[in-house]
Amino acid sequence: MAIQRLAIVGTGLIGASIGLAAKRAGVAEVVGSDADEEHVRVALESGALDGATDELDADLVIVAVPVAQLPTRVRDVLAATREATVTDVGSTKSSVVAAAGNDARFVGGHPVCGSEARGPAHANAELFQGATWFLTPIAQTDPQRYRTLHGFVAALGAVPVAIDARAHDRLMAMTSHLPHVLANVLLNHAGATRVEGHEPLAAAGGSLRDMTRVAGANPRIWVDIFLDNADALRDSLGEHRRRIEQVEEALENGDAGFLARWIGEAATNRRAMLADAYPDATDLHRLRVHVPDRPGVLAGITQALGAERINIEDFELHHVSAERGGTLTLLVAGASQAESAAALLEAMGYGVLVAPVEE
Amino acid sequence: MAIQRLAIVGTGLIGASIGLAAKRAGVAEVVGSDADEEHVRVALESGALDGATDELDADLVIVAVPVAQLPTRVRDVLAATREATVTDVGSTKSSVVAAAGNDARFVGGHPVCGSEARGPAHANAELFQGATWFLTPIAQTDPQRYRTLHGFVAALGAVPVAIDARAHDRLMAMTSHLPHVLANVLLNHAGATRVEGHEPLAAAGGSLRDMTRVAGANPRIWVDIFLDNADALRDSLGEHRRRIEQVEEALENGDAGFLARWIGEAATNRRAMLADAYPDATDLHRLRVHVPDRPGVLAGITQALGAERINIEDFELHHVSAERGGTLTLLVAGASQAESAAALLEAMGYGVLVAPVEE
Repeated sequence: MAIQRLAIVGTGLIGASIGLAAKRAGVAEVVGSDADEEHVRVALESGALDGATDELDADLVIVAVPVAQLPTRVRDVLAATREATVTDVGSTKSSVVAAAGNDARFVGGHPVCGSEARGPAHANAELFQGATWFLTPIAQTDPQRYRTLHGFVAALGAVPVAIDARAHDRLMAMTSHLPHVLANVLLNHAGATRVEGHEPLAAAGGSLRDMTRVAGANPRIWVDIFLDNADALRDSLGEHRRRIEQVEEALENGDAGFLARWIGEAATNRRAMLADAYPDATDLHRLRVHVPDRPGVLAGITQALGAERINIEDFELHHVSAERGGTLTLLVAGASQAESAAALLEAMGYGVLVAPVEE
Repeated sequence: MAIQRLAIVGTGLIGASIGLAAKRAGVAEVVGSDADEEHVRVALESGALDGATDELDADLVIVAVPVAQLPTRVRDVLAATREATVTDVGSTKSSVVAAAGNDARFVGGHPVCGSEARGPAHANAELFQGATWFLTPIAQTDPQRYRTLHGFVAALGAVPVAIDARAHDRLMAMTSHLPHVLANVLLNHAGATRVEGHEPLAAAGGSLRDMTRVAGANPRIWVDIFLDNADALRDSLGEHRRRIEQVEEALENGDAGFLARWIGEAATNRRAMLADAYPDATDLHRLRVHVPDRPGVLAGITQALGAERINIEDFELHHVSAERGGTLTLLVAGASQAESAAALLEAMGYGVLVAPVEE
């Protein structure tokens, strides 16, 4: 049974984007509500909603309210409906799944589509394209409802992945919440440090910039996520501290052997992490090109590479400054493709550094 | 007095790149030596060296050997020469500066041009273009020699920045060595964790990937750097642990106020960090586009944006997988430029998410 009528509780960025993607996927009618009337108006105007109502008479109800409100709202929605399948889109799952009791109609959900944008004005049917969408069925879940939700999520362009709610939260603590905390800690540490008139923030190189990209993310969302997943996150932070202490000890003892093994282990883990994204990771080559800061430079480069059918795996231009220009980094699979790309770029007058990604 | 004759001790990636850049900048003669004969052969072949010799009869001698060997080699070079100005290119400065005593002819140096490549085969005259090149003059340094070295470094395309050697090492501990340690720790933590059959490394999102880009970097270089800067790095790691403990405490106490202030502080620090690279950071907009994984896609996009003279500040394509395609992220300065860019991309059939970078 496909979804004919969809109700969305909370038409912020995620709720409204689901509305748009659902309409595009052929859902006949999408209705919804939001505590903020402006959100509803924008969602209606953009076509994310066909109608504004808090009637929950629908095949599927999606609760897309802030994490802290989820347990109460999901319980209310389950109580107010008899037929609807109910899901949510929160970044943490244990508390909302617990709140839903063992209701066969509820399946927790979490589309992983980090966006710093907020509000239905930034909603987009593309938001879920290619994104992992965790679903947390339990033993009591009605299999038919789960299958329907699974199909709905896939129809929005996402990749549904089933997981236990507690495992989800531990996985997120490790892969998302811990990195977010570290980014904030690192940036506040650098910001609070002065080294004889030199400001670490002004001297920040690429590694500090890369590592703090998610720092300072919307506190209205992240405070709730951190607090809702406090137990798993504290476990991760404690383990992180213990691992830092091991490194301090190795530094104190001048233990070169430990440090070399530890770096080698990181290299192995990095290969494993990239294996999914880059099936040919062992043959990746990195090209670095210094480019001036002006329009048209990128186009010239990508056009030349495209014309030779060189497939670029990863492509980054980091702007250094208007005066200094920027550094373009390309990942290309295969030594011969990397050589062709380098030759092309050199023929265009650029200096190119090429190196295999693996040592 | 400009440099006429340059001697390079150690013709690996950095040494040979200096040779190439120096020749291009008009240095009449570059000679050099390396413990590895193959390095010398490659450097001669590429034109990085005009001659192979360990004679140090030159205006400037650059010691470009591994960090652990620097103190001894710099002392030897100073003892073997009477006239030459001597510098080095190590990533840590206190120990080599101490080893040079108060010799007026020595000025420590550190070109910040992170490259994972090694060996003279990857050498490139472009390596220093736009890079910060720290110089560590002391009270005893001969001002004329310092001015000449300063001019030489600038002629290679780098931006010379004077700094006290100890301050340099503390600055590097904070902005480079601590991030490197955290990247390794985070990746080894993720690699050692199993969550009911789900592997964190396989589920790694963008934040974990961004934060571990420098993990597993060449242990032959990094073990020496970590150990040579052990004191400053241990200070940074200790402070990092204390800051993590504060977060754990806030999580334990459900202290939403602390967490909100702490995230807000990180947002402020992030703005400060980006202010140098992006003078208009307050007006930056981020565009996200899902693109298929095939040649020509990037060229089409950059060409269209270039034709409209839209200046892209930052440009990233992260490859998700051959099946799912990738996500292209653009940073564009100014709301109107961002809107024009989004309209162009939408006209090309792409779904675009636009959001101001600041909340």
